[in-house]
Amino acid sequence: MQKQYLLTAGPTPVPEEVLTAMARPVPYHRAPAFAECLKEAREGLQWIFQTTQPVLVLSGSGTAAMDAAVSNFLSAGDKVLVVRGGKFGERWAEIASAYGVSVVPLDVEWGRAVDPAAVARALDADPAIRAVYATATETSTGVRHPVDGLAAVCRSRAGVLCVVDAISALGVYDLPMDKAGFDVVVAGSQKALMLPPGLAFLAASEKAWQAHAAAKLPRFYLDLGREKKSQTAGETAFTPAVSLVVGLRESLRLLRADGLESTFARHAKLARATRAAGAGLGLEPYADPPSDSVTALKLPAGLDGSAVVRHMRTRYGVTIAGGQGKAKGKIIRLAHLGWYGSFDIITAVAALEMTLADLGAAVTPGAGVAAAQAVLREGT
Amino acid sequence: MQKQYLLTAGPTPVPEEVLTAMARPVPYHRAPAFAECLKEAREGLQWIFQTTQPVLVLSGSGTAAMDAAVSNFLSAGDKVLVVRGGKFGERWAEIASAYGVSVVPLDVEWGRAVDPAAVARALDADPAIRAVYATATETSTGVRHPVDGLAAVCRSRAGVLCVVDAISALGVYDLPMDKAGFDVVVAGSQKALMLPPGLAFLAASEKAWQAHAAAKLPRFYLDLGREKKSQTAGETAFTPAVSLVVGLRESLRLLRADGLESTFARHAKLARATRAAGAGLGLEPYADPPSDSVTALKLPAGLDGSAVVRHMRTRYGVTIAGGQGKAKGKIIRLAHLGWYGSFDIITAVAALEMTLADLGAAVTPGAGVAAAQAVLREGT
Repeated sequence: MQKQYLLTAGPTPVPEEVLTAMARPVPYHRAPAFAECLKEAREGLQWIFQTTQPVLVLSGSGTAAMDAAVSNFLSAGDKVLVVRGGKFGERWAEIASAYGVSVVPLDVEWGRAVDPAAVARALDADPAIRAVYATATETSTGVRHPVDGLAAVCRSRAGVLCVVDAISALGVYDLPMDKAGFDVVVAGSQKALMLPPGLAFLAASEKAWQAHAAAKLPRFYLDLGREKKSQTAGETAFTPAVSLVVGLRESLRLLRADGLESTFARHAKLARATRAAGAGLGLEPYADPPSDSVTALKLPAGLDGSAVVRHMRTRYGVTIAGGQGKAKGKIIRLAHLGWYGSFDIITAVAALEMTLADLGAAVTPGAGVAAAQAVLREGT
Repeated sequence: MQKQYLLTAGPTPVPEEVLTAMARPVPYHRAPAFAECLKEAREGLQWIFQTTQPVLVLSGSGTAAMDAAVSNFLSAGDKVLVVRGGKFGERWAEIASAYGVSVVPLDVEWGRAVDPAAVARALDADPAIRAVYATATETSTGVRHPVDGLAAVCRSRAGVLCVVDAISALGVYDLPMDKAGFDVVVAGSQKALMLPPGLAFLAASEKAWQAHAAAKLPRFYLDLGREKKSQTAGETAFTPAVSLVVGLRESLRLLRADGLESTFARHAKLARATRAAGAGLGLEPYADPPSDSVTALKLPAGLDGSAVVRHMRTRYGVTIAGGQGKAKGKIIRLAHLGWYGSFDIITAVAALEMTLADLGAAVTPGAGVAAAQAVLREGT
C-alpha cells in the first residue's frame, strides 16, 4: 500500500485525459476515423517540431528512430562525425558502426557541452564527413548541447547533414527545426509528449530527403521512404501502435491549448527550482550547461548514488534515476520534462533530503525545499 | 451516436481487464516491479509459443519481428525459399530483397495452401537455400498453410531454417514450436493475444541461434543478440512500450486461466460457425484449407467487396475487412481470432446479411445467422 511517485526522465507521468483516451476500445487502423486521428496527431507534431516537413510516426522505442536516422541517410563506408559526451551520444556511434559507417568521434567530457567551433574544425579537416550526429539534451549527463550552433556549422557545408537526437528535448525548450536548420530530428513519445513509450517520431529536411534518395544501407521496417509515402496518403505502412496514436492526439491537444511559449516557460521554471534546490542542499551540478529536461547533481563524497536511488524508492516510494555509464554511482538525476508540476519537484527534493539524512550525509532537511519554493513562488 | 463494432483480424477487441490495466500510471522500465511484469509476461509467451527457448519482446509492429527474422539470421547474398500465396508471404520476399538476400519464390495460388513436397523438391534442387520463410495463417486469403509439414522438411536438412510468420495464428490453433521444430516463430500483440498493436514477439531454436552467430546483415534496433542478452537478464535493451507489456501480462493471465486446449477449441467453434454462415448464405469459401483465424468468403458476381465493407461500416457501424492485393474487391474477411464470442459472429453475419440485401444481392436474411446458431449451440 505504499504510494508510488514516478519522477524519471522517461517514462514520464501521463495525464489522466491521455490514460483514459488510450483505455477506450482500439479503432481499426485502416478506417476513416483513425485516419482523422493520425492526421490531427501528425499536424500537432509539425507544430511541436516547428517544421513544414512531414513528421513520421514510427512504432517503436526512440532508438528505432535513431536507427532510422542512420540507416535511411547513409551508405556503407560513409563517414560521419559523432558528438560523444554521454550514453546517448555513444549510441549514435554504436548504430553507425553496426551499419558499417565510419565514425569520427568528437569526444566531449561527460557533463560538458560540445563546442560548435570544434565541429567546424573537424569538418574542415575531413571533407569526406557526410553528417554530424548530435544530442540536444544528453539525458545521461543532463547537459544541453548547442545543437543550433551545430546546425549553423552544417548549413554552410553542402552535403553535410545535421542530425539531432531531440528525444529528451523536444517540447522542453525551443528547438525550431526549420528555423535552426536541423536536417533530421528524432523524438520519442515518453518524454515531453506525456505518453507511454512505444512511439518514435522523425522529420527530415529537403537536404536530408535528397540524401535519402541516394542512401544504400538496407532497411525495411524502418524505411522512411515507404512511411513518408504511406503517411502522406493518410495511413502508416504497417499496423501502428493504435492506442498510443490515440493518446498522442490527446496529449498534443493539451499541449497546443497551452502553447509552445507557455510549455517552454513551465519547463524552465521547474528546472530552475530543481537547480536551486540542489544549490540549497550544497550538491554541485554535474552538467554545464544544464538542460531544462533533467537536473544531474553530484553526491557528497563517500555516498553511492545507486544506494540513494534505491533508498528513495524502497523507503519512500519515490523513483528517480541514478547515473549511467561513466557517471554510474556518482550522480542522481531529477527529471522535470513532460507532465510535471511544482509539487512533483517538491516531492523529489523532499524525498532526496530525507534519504540523504537517512544515509548519514550532512544536509539540512528543508533547505532544498525552501530554495525550490522561492523559485516556484515567482510570478505569483 | 452510432455504436461501433470492430470485427477485423487486427486490431482485435481488447478485454476490459486489459484496457483498464493499461490505463494505470506507467511504471519505470528499469525498476524491479516492471522487471517482475516483464518476467511473468515472457513466461506466458513461452507457454503460448510452446517453447523452452527465450521469447523476445520487441516494441514495434509485427513487421518489425518479420524484419528481425530476416536481418538476424542471414548474410547478404544468402539464398532463401519464400512461400508466396498472399500479401504476407509476399512481405517475406520484400524484406529479404531489401536486405540483398536472394529470393527463390515458391508461388502458390491465392486461396490455396503450399504443398510441403513442393518445398522439399525445391530444397533438393538447390542446396544453397538457407531457409524457408512461410506463413501459418495467411491473413490476406484466410488460408492455413501446413507449416508443421514444412518444419519436417527443413528438420532433415542441416543448415536449413524453417521461419514461420505466426502473427495471425499463435493462440488460435496448435502450433507447438519445439515439438513441430520451427526455427523462428514471430507473433504480434493485436491478434489472439488480445492487445492493441505495438508489440511483436520472436523466438528462435538452437539451430537458428547458431545461424544468428554467423549472420552478417547489419542491424541495431532489431538486433536479437542484444535483446536476448538484456531480456534474459531481466530488462529490454531499449525503453519498451511499457503499458503494452503491462497489458500483455494481463491478457496472458486470462489465456492461461482458460488453457491452451480451451482457447483452440473456442477459436475452432467460432470459425466453424462463420464458415457455416457463409454456406448458409450461399457464399463460396475463398480459402482451402481455411484457417480458424479469419474466414474469407467470395461475393456473388457483380458485387464489389469494397462496397460491402463500406456499407457495413457506414450504415451499420460494423467494421470487417475486404480483400487485399489480388483479392481486392473479390472477397470479404470475417475475423474470429482473439477476444471474440458467439455474438460477435452473429453480429458480423447479421450485418453482412442486411448489407447484401441492401445492395440487391439474392440472400435470405437470417439464413446465415441460423446456420451459425446451429454450430454455436453445439455442446450445450
